[in-house]
Amino acid sequence: MKHFLNTQDWSHSDLDALLTQAALFKKNKLGDELQGKSIALVFFNSSLRTRSSFELGAFQLGGHAIVLQPGKDAWPIEFDVGTVMDGEAEEHIAEVAQVLGRYVDMIGVRAFPKFVDWQTDREDRVLQGFAKYAGVPVINLETITHPCQELAHAMALQEHFGTHDLRGKKYVLTWTYHPKALNTAVANSALTIATRLGMDVTLLCPTPDYVLDERYMGWAQTNVAESGGSLRVSHDIADAYTGADIVYAKSWGALPYFGNWEPEKPIRDRYRHFIVDSEKMAMTNNGVFSHCLPLRRNIKATDAVMDSPACIAINEAENRLHVQKAVMAALMAQ
Amino acid sequence: MKHFLNTQDWSHSDLDALLTQAALFKKNKLGDELQGKSIALVFFNSSLRTRSSFELGAFQLGGHAIVLQPGKDAWPIEFDVGTVMDGEAEEHIAEVAQVLGRYVDMIGVRAFPKFVDWQTDREDRVLQGFAKYAGVPVINLETITHPCQELAHAMALQEHFGTHDLRGKKYVLTWTYHPKALNTAVANSALTIATRLGMDVTLLCPTPDYVLDERYMGWAQTNVAESGGSLRVSHDIADAYTGADIVYAKSWGALPYFGNWEPEKPIRDRYRHFIVDSEKMAMTNNGVFSHCLPLRRNIKATDAVMDSPACIAINEAENRLHVQKAVMAALMAQ
Amino acid sequence: MKHFLNTQDWSHSDLDALLTQAALFKKNKLGDELQGKSIALVFFNSSLRTRSSFELGAFQLGGHAIVLQPGKDAWPIEFDVGTVMDGEAEEHIAEVAQVLGRYVDMIGVRAFPKFVDWQTDREDRVLQGFAKYAGVPVINLETITHPCQELAHAMALQEHFGTHDLRGKKYVLTWTYHPKALNTAVANSALTIATRLGMDVTLLCPTPDYVLDERYMGWAQTNVAESGGSLRVSHDIADAYTGADIVYAKSWGALPYFGNWEPEKPIRDRYRHFIVDSEKMAMTNNGVFSHCLPLRRNIKATDAVMDSPACIAINEAENRLHVQKAVMAALMAQ
Repeated sequence: MKHFLNTQDWSHSDLDALLTQAALFKKNKLGDELQGKSIALVFFNSSLRTRSSFELGAFQLGGHAIVLQPGKDAWPIEFDVGTVMDGEAEEHIAEVAQVLGRYVDMIGVRAFPKFVDWQTDREDRVLQGFAKYAGVPVINLETITHPCQELAHAMALQEHFGTHDLRGKKYVLTWTYHPKALNTAVANSALTIATRLGMDVTLLCPTPDYVLDERYMGWAQTNVAESGGSLRVSHDIADAYTGADIVYAKSWGALPYFGNWEPEKPIRDRYRHFIVDSEKMAMTNNGVFSHCLPLRRNIKATDAVMDSPACIAINEAENRLHVQKAVMAALMAQ
Repeated sequence: MKHFLNTQDWSHSDLDALLTQAALFKKNKLGDELQGKSIALVFFNSSLRTRSSFELGAFQLGGHAIVLQPGKDAWPIEFDVGTVMDGEAEEHIAEVAQVLGRYVDMIGVRAFPKFVDWQTDREDRVLQGFAKYAGVPVINLETITHPCQELAHAMALQEHFGTHDLRGKKYVLTWTYHPKALNTAVANSALTIATRLGMDVTLLCPTPDYVLDERYMGWAQTNVAESGGSLRVSHDIADAYTGADIVYAKSWGALPYFGNWEPEKPIRDRYRHFIVDSEKMAMTNNGVFSHCLPLRRNIKATDAVMDSPACIAINEAENRLHVQKAVMAALMAQ
Repeated sequence: MKHFLNTQDWSHSDLDALLTQAALFKKNKLGDELQGKSIALVFFNSSLRTRSSFELGAFQLGGHAIVLQPGKDAWPIEFDVGTVMDGEAEEHIAEVAQVLGRYVDMIGVRAFPKFVDWQTDREDRVLQGFAKYAGVPVINLETITHPCQELAHAMALQEHFGTHDLRGKKYVLTWTYHPKALNTAVANSALTIATRLGMDVTLLCPTPDYVLDERYMGWAQTNVAESGGSLRVSHDIADAYTGADIVYAKSWGALPYFGNWEPEKPIRDRYRHFIVDSEKMAMTNNGVFSHCLPLRRNIKATDAVMDSPACIAINEAENRLHVQKAVMAALMAQ
């Protein structure tokens, strides 16, 4: 049984098939691929696009989504094995996942890091726990990666350039400032999918401390070796932007300070000028800009960039709906 | 593209058509007017009737409603333009509304005043922001007016009197006591629709401080000029109730004390006797009573009034379902 | 009009018909028994299984469930009659239930005790209030009993033993430790359904203080008189477990300490050894184990028991879906 935990688990041709199906769903939104089927959407963190697009996608294909928010309108859950459960958790993931798996045909899970200890968070235990016990396909709704966003991003780029073949494009993933230390999930994902698609990828970030976890840097290395693209890290804004075809922005906290964010804050504050603005975009090769949203205007990107024709962030967000329908349909067809 | 932000934006014949369609939906509850369509219901404030009736109405017409609660299970949202977003808000209404508009066919918005500054609240920025950016029809689920309640109220009165023509009826909108300073939305709306329908309207309130905002008093003046009804303000209970055909009750805070409610509290407390009771109803012309609900019994109206055959508040609440289906169907048919 | 407030209100043959229908739904999950129908699920307390299984059950039969959480995303509600409502509650149950009853075809209600005064809580006023005013069938989603769980439990036992006839089986309802004083609802329900089905029932608990309310002990007495089963109370673990065919576990607070839990805590803490473990299960007649979930592992039952083939708790949880569809279908067919 296949899950959709990461794009890296899926073959290039399977990903292509998903993107092709997504384009069909964009043209004809209604279908019966999920007739009588159901998905539970388990949110340990809040959501706007993910929740709306999955709920709607299930409906448009004849199915039904149930939205659950553990710790808000359901019980706190234990994920460790062998624990004497005398703390807060009223229930173990083994029972939660098994029971949900008896009710529904698929389970989507959003579980951000707890931001205390990266070595623990990088195990992705909530998502892995559901995948282990549920007995039905599990979809990653963003944990420490965000594979649904990857597909939506890829689709928006393919639409923009009018081709599925993005090899040779100069792709910049740029860190931007944000007042809080954020999840690296979308950054990990952008690096993964951009290298997978054979692009020439630059990871632009303030200092080596902002380089991503070795697992995702490793996936990117593997991907460029297979796809013929390239990967480099740069800390020089002009160097990275010059000639870029694509600029993708995201903020994240530096991993060496994970869970110890006080000393990272003044460092991060020094790099507010990483904001995506018209001056930087002018250095690109008539480049396209995107972001996963939500985005703080005039912090991560200026109003001028957001409101320019070069910004395809809204298209990318729309595509969440289409690619997720393709993922659900593929998981149900297996 | 038409929104449903206020009844005042719709022609009399369009409103008549909505009420006629609502009566048909009351007889035959199922239809296919929203087959495959969806609506996002965005609640910045809590709801019982609005949420249930919209969700159900969408289902009964073949569609689907998605319920979102920003600040509860989605992100806080920025509404000002040009802001450097380094505060609480993670996202701008421009992106929220555009993305939702890509997903769904309609958006409903509930956003009460913040009760700090009436000059700001009366701009109705949340609702107007969605209408500006969404690219799909927007429905007012109660902000500083409540047009869905207006239609439900009109329908209940038309049912009670057995005619669509309510011209010449003596209509009293009476302020009542409530321990908190409440929104003027339903009061503004009652005044708007009652004058629109050509009734002889009395606004009964304790003092001139409780007269409503000039925008809505102005709409009412415009309406009586066109419809042949009349409008007057009274602070005398016996004067207002005597001979009334309709008594509609609502509590609201006095606008001169908006955001500075401490000094208004002792004033309001002196008018607890504005409660609708059997003695007052006995002065009417065998009058009918209604209220938009929720209602605090024995504060706004006595048990005797609420439980009497003259009370049509439950009918009015039921009609929310029917009129809202008519509104959604009309917006989708344009 | 029939409600589903307690199994005790339904005849044995009606309960049999529900269980037979549930088995059919387990084989063929989709149907049209609720085509165009709706149910409001009103949760005063959080839920995982109940909410998911009812929402899904309605969908699978062509209907729609609306989930409401008073005090979370709707108004606080008054349940007393004649009150001057100048406290927190913005609305009376009379209006809430009547309006919901105008919108939907059925109403489900979850309302746990408030754990202050058992004499008040045992009146079950929230559930009874909805049943009194709604004008449509009301379903108990767990208040001071849990009849949906009873049916799911009975179905799981019938599946396990391969027969509808459970007369003569030795059934042990064992109290277990839990750090908090919990609701007696499932214990009341287990006693009710086990005696109803004619089993030889032992209520195993630490001391006479943990015996259940006289209403439910009385129902159990009535049931054994009619069904030919038996009922006894035991405080001796070996005595109760020896030769048992069925062990059902549940924790609950001792009624004499209701609302005054401080002095009960050290008493409860002395009986941690009531945990269901392999040693105790070895005393049974190759007995089957179940629990209503959620369950704290290694507090109420050990990992070894939970993960053994003798544990049918997941089956019981799954059956919630099937029996509830049978209940909804029966209520709509009346």
